[in-house]
Amino acid sequence: MSQKILHFAVILAGCGNKDGAEIHESVLTLLSIDRAGHQYQCFAPDVPQARVLNFLTNEEMKEKRNVLLESARIARSKIKPLSDFSKDDFDILVLPGGSGVAYNLCTFGLDGDRMTVLPQVEASVRAMHEAGKPIGALCISPVIIAHVLKKVTVTFGKDEKINAIFQKSGSKTTNADARSIVIDHENKIVTTPCYMLDARISEISEGIDKLVQELIKLV
Amino acid sequence: MSQKILHFAVILAGCGNKDGAEIHESVLTLLSIDRAGHQYQCFAPDVPQARVLNFLTNEEMKEKRNVLLESARIARSKIKPLSDFSKDDFDILVLPGGSGVAYNLCTFGLDGDRMTVLPQVEASVRAMHEAGKPIGALCISPVIIAHVLKKVTVTFGKDEKINAIFQKSGSKTTNADARSIVIDHENKIVTTPCYMLDARISEISEGIDKLVQELIKLV
Repeated sequence: MSQKILHFAVILAGCGNKDGAEIHESVLTLLSIDRAGHQYQCFAPDVPQARVLNFLTNEEMKEKRNVLLESARIARSKIKPLSDFSKDDFDILVLPGGSGVAYNLCTFGLDGDRMTVLPQVEASVRAMHEAGKPIGALCISPVIIAHVLKKVTVTFGKDEKINAIFQKSGSKTTNADARSIVIDHENKIVTTPCYMLDARISEISEGIDKLVQELIKLV
Repeated sequence: MSQKILHFAVILAGCGNKDGAEIHESVLTLLSIDRAGHQYQCFAPDVPQARVLNFLTNEEMKEKRNVLLESARIARSKIKPLSDFSKDDFDILVLPGGSGVAYNLCTFGLDGDRMTVLPQVEASVRAMHEAGKPIGALCISPVIIAHVLKKVTVTFGKDEKINAIFQKSGSKTTNADARSIVIDHENKIVTTPCYMLDARISEISEGIDKLVQELIKLV
């Protein structure tokens, strides 16, 4: 029996955990998809980065970078602007984590429970969900899923402050470790905490592998 | 029997295959080391990047970036300046690839066979080699090993032009695919071509796993 090749869309948020997409989480997502014999296409919004951090001092740098261009570094240039995304072309959507998710894809990092989501990102998540297609979210990315869809079950690792915010808006939160996933079967949402916890790369790799395997089952 | 924990030093060359360290190769090196139960410390030279490329147009950008700061993105800030490296602290040295190797760690990208190597990089390679410690080099990084040590056996994938250059200076080159490694037992050098070839991420992952396993055996 030949396996049906599934098409994953992966939305990146820059390049680097402090101001962009978390690099390990992004790369290991691509690895899991490819190793399972499926295909991926990376996307990122063509917008300015909210901030550029110095990764040694944690200070903000007086630089301007573009989310699509920086994300292209992770994607080895094989990336499209998120405005080109169509739900019809994909079976599964995945959002890796990193602070870029909370600053470039939405405003959770600045605004907390009064956050807004970049319209292209919100539209992509909503379109996939309404089409009954599975969505995976790593690390801090479930904030976007919980904000857009409400009443979903997700994990934020063991962050009780974030748990409280999204419980208030109707979602359930389940604590989990980096090697685990949380599955919302009804909404076809799979989440894993990755570096929300002080985890080793081999642990987040295990969580991401499980997430990708579960998303495939949910198609 | 408890396993002895080995300490790997990993030298990065920026962040992104076109002007820095190849991100997939770097991350998968860290994953292989951690999954094998060993430890890594990332290093990068604290020097300006030779160039900053736009990853969509391939044009040079009028920006200045620093190799250590950009490498810190891959290392999640856990990185030291290469000037702090001491051979006594490490059992194994690994150099992932990417154009940054050929532009920031040495001048092969500009000067070909008249290349020079950044003194700190040359000193690190030479110190580990003289101490009889294994060195792994991915993708284009074997240019540094072959230039510094001469008369080694390495792979550049199937790049006959690069093969010819280093054969002339006394090295042997062995063609290999992305899932393979080339071992120079005498010099304790292990190389794998990674993205020197048009490979899938799951293929380079296999090559890197084999490289790390072989380096461990050579200690």
